[in-house]
Amino acid sequence: MVDPRFFPAQGPFDLAALAGIAHAETGGADAAGRAFVDVAPLDAAGPDHVSFLDNRKYVGAFTESAAGACLVHPDLADRAPAGMALLITRDPYRAYALVAQAFHPFDAVEPGLSPAAHIDPAADVDATARVDCGAVVGAGASIGPRSHVMANAYVGPGVRLGADCRVGPGATLQCCLIDDRVILHPGVRIGQDGFGFALGGQGHEKVPQLGRVLIGHDVEIGANSTIDRGTGPDTEIGPGTKIDNLVQIGHNVRLGRGCVVVAQVGISGSTVVGDFAMLGGQAGLAGHLSIGAGARVAAQSGLMRDVPPGTTVAGSPALPAKEHWRQQAALSKLVKRR
Amino acid sequence: MVDPRFFPAQGPFDLAALAGIAHAETGGADAAGRAFVDVAPLDAAGPDHVSFLDNRKYVGAFTESAAGACLVHPDLADRAPAGMALLITRDPYRAYALVAQAFHPFDAVEPGLSPAAHIDPAADVDATARVDCGAVVGAGASIGPRSHVMANAYVGPGVRLGADCRVGPGATLQCCLIDDRVILHPGVRIGQDGFGFALGGQGHEKVPQLGRVLIGHDVEIGANSTIDRGTGPDTEIGPGTKIDNLVQIGHNVRLGRGCVVVAQVGISGSTVVGDFAMLGGQAGLAGHLSIGAGARVAAQSGLMRDVPPGTTVAGSPALPAKEHWRQQAALSKLVKRR
Amino acid sequence: MVDPRFFPAQGPFDLAALAGIAHAETGGADAAGRAFVDVAPLDAAGPDHVSFLDNRKYVGAFTESAAGACLVHPDLADRAPAGMALLITRDPYRAYALVAQAFHPFDAVEPGLSPAAHIDPAADVDATARVDCGAVVGAGASIGPRSHVMANAYVGPGVRLGADCRVGPGATLQCCLIDDRVILHPGVRIGQDGFGFALGGQGHEKVPQLGRVLIGHDVEIGANSTIDRGTGPDTEIGPGTKIDNLVQIGHNVRLGRGCVVVAQVGISGSTVVGDFAMLGGQAGLAGHLSIGAGARVAAQSGLMRDVPPGTTVAGSPALPAKEHWRQQAALSKLVKRR
Repeated sequence: MVDPRFFPAQGPFDLAALAGIAHAETGGADAAGRAFVDVAPLDAAGPDHVSFLDNRKYVGAFTESAAGACLVHPDLADRAPAGMALLITRDPYRAYALVAQAFHPFDAVEPGLSPAAHIDPAADVDATARVDCGAVVGAGASIGPRSHVMANAYVGPGVRLGADCRVGPGATLQCCLIDDRVILHPGVRIGQDGFGFALGGQGHEKVPQLGRVLIGHDVEIGANSTIDRGTGPDTEIGPGTKIDNLVQIGHNVRLGRGCVVVAQVGISGSTVVGDFAMLGGQAGLAGHLSIGAGARVAAQSGLMRDVPPGTTVAGSPALPAKEHWRQQAALSKLVKRR
Repeated sequence: MVDPRFFPAQGPFDLAALAGIAHAETGGADAAGRAFVDVAPLDAAGPDHVSFLDNRKYVGAFTESAAGACLVHPDLADRAPAGMALLITRDPYRAYALVAQAFHPFDAVEPGLSPAAHIDPAADVDATARVDCGAVVGAGASIGPRSHVMANAYVGPGVRLGADCRVGPGATLQCCLIDDRVILHPGVRIGQDGFGFALGGQGHEKVPQLGRVLIGHDVEIGANSTIDRGTGPDTEIGPGTKIDNLVQIGHNVRLGRGCVVVAQVGISGSTVVGDFAMLGGQAGLAGHLSIGAGARVAAQSGLMRDVPPGTTVAGSPALPAKEHWRQQAALSKLVKRR
Repeated sequence: MVDPRFFPAQGPFDLAALAGIAHAETGGADAAGRAFVDVAPLDAAGPDHVSFLDNRKYVGAFTESAAGACLVHPDLADRAPAGMALLITRDPYRAYALVAQAFHPFDAVEPGLSPAAHIDPAADVDATARVDCGAVVGAGASIGPRSHVMANAYVGPGVRLGADCRVGPGATLQCCLIDDRVILHPGVRIGQDGFGFALGGQGHEKVPQLGRVLIGHDVEIGANSTIDRGTGPDTEIGPGTKIDNLVQIGHNVRLGRGCVVVAQVGISGSTVVGDFAMLGGQAGLAGHLSIGAGARVAAQSGLMRDVPPGTTVAGSPALPAKEHWRQQAALSKLVKRR
């Protein structure tokens, strides 16, 4: 059950209100006069909770759940136990996201500048923004409406942060321009010098990195991920792209809109990734590649060549996924034959 | 030799005291009246140092060592040079750990709250705890006896930290409950939102993450590792589990007791790892897997299936280790035959 | 074009001055009386910019560039468009580094201790050094001339930092001695306990880590990388070695001079890497290995054996690169034959 110490719930809501929030049809047992106080998983929910069924694997838990209401696909609605009210939708997981957001809205930010924050007089912090203790906002930086810079974060000189952003504790931002509704988790590092050297047998000469990092609306970047600034061109993260923890993004990389980058991926300098591409965990991309829109890269893949739009690749070195799996099967047979 | 600037030694100890500390038998040269001032490696030790022999590879260094005393397995005791006192034990490395701890006890914490710490009036900090400058302790958080929150660390609202814990500089804790004797290294990130989205071609909807992170007694977590909080269920790290640097642990993951997780491992959401499993460096585990107790996962493996208890797997995709190595051998022969 | 908000340019410089900076010969169009105000890429440069051609792939952009001057190899000088002044050199990229440094010198540090820094009275901070707000300098630590400790960084007790170093925001240093001109990016973790345990079925005993981290002149370490201190011997990073982001270096590792370690590499304990070795991204090195001078390790390789000097290895497990690629080719044929 949700721990109210960390996640106090809004509400309660009745079924009609939830149906509106979830863009769902009501069905199942009559819920007139009933109030729902929170979300809960199928196996933990009680009569005043709302649950969801997203995966057929859990139909058993659904049929046995004591949840008072449940978000469910129309094809599975007739499997509901007696007494369960239904919120019927073709996308129960997305509907769950909306219902859970209603019970647990993302923190409304209480404006204010901590007296223990270090805000340069030449910074421009919106009156509705919040800056917590130990946070630093440099000269010429700007913090947009309702944005929240958490404790001990660092917003360097000239950085622009849009509206409704959250900068997690201990994150550091340099040389970057950030749009609205961007979430940066703790320890994110944005805009430091990329790894740029003129290599040589007598020593490596540091090349000034003169580009920025540009981050679009609605981007989320996971804890301790690192995004280097460009060398002259910029590093760019397109709107709606979601990046998990411990991801490395090199200088001049450009990610399109709506990309999904799973934990511990590394993208080398100047590689371009198209809209809505998905990169599995620990995948590594060489530099100067072009990954097409909608491409899918399996976890731990190692990419040394361009990937056409909409295709799936796997393996290290990465191949079209079917070819990779055929090779694995052939290798397996080779051993068994002996 | 140990640098006293960083590691001042307790002691000295005589051989009998060391035998008691190490649960060892004495032997070898007579050490009556001799005092030992510190530990040192075999090749650097002098007559007032204690060394250890753990690996047969170093028998040569042992026979030539000037160490005054040495921890050694009974089978190798007769290889000791003349003049060396012996501390005979079947587990010399563990015995060394105890002896080294005697000379270099883990910091006893001097209680006190830095005037430059930011402690919410509604936090509950034990009178014997220590909170250093720039550290933040949020409302409703509690810090147990003798625990030490180092500089610029962040202990978020409601977080519970047990007794004798250490939170390294710049670490951040949110939405978590932590038991006793837990060591969190610098830059550890615990309890931020997991990577939870209802993915969609028009954009990805953020799903509220309503679980916590529960960390058992005697856990250690390495620098810059990240552990996301659960989605509703909790993320759990069992007692005595040791996690190295730059490890990623996704939401709802459960690690059992005494697991060993080497650097840069990534564990995807909802995977369960049994007691005393060992995960080699850079291994990647897909989500929703079950890894049995005592399983061993080779470095850089990529796990896409469950692993039975007590088995060893290797490769990406991971196979039973013998099968993986047979495949590698077959591939090698295939090339040589041509 | 370079954003003056972040990167104000020095200069302007005339062609003769640039030739001196770049150790280049002048050529091409007459540049008498012309002044150059900044660097820019070939496709963005105008008549008052200096550009460079390093890669034959971009000869087309070179012939069409409006750059007023360009750094170019003698073999390609005759492809320059009319009106372009030339700076002719056999190493245009290194020359570009020098010219870009002239326009954008690495921050000259304005000395001063922020009143919001936490500097122990027993620390020794040079009068020309700079310590920013929220940074911590412990007892017995020393900060050399013109070194800059940025906001919320932590320099632990006894740490020695040489001259002209930069410690990025939120970085943490413990138990280490650092030479001159070392750059540590944000979130770097140096000198925490290594992952040292006497493993056992009843629990893992922590082994005190009594060595330091020694870092040579001109080293650069990327954001959120982690370097553990030695167990008794030291961990050592040789002069001029460059380490990218999110790299893990275990206890007792020794890197020689001028090594290049790309992002997300992991090096296990006690491995020794020779001078000017190059480790590709996400490579993993087992412990106690010896990697020869000038060796090259392909991205994502997994090293379980020593690597002779000057050789190239690839694959996981790593093999001599040619053998690895032959195996990949054989595997590919095997599938196609069926």
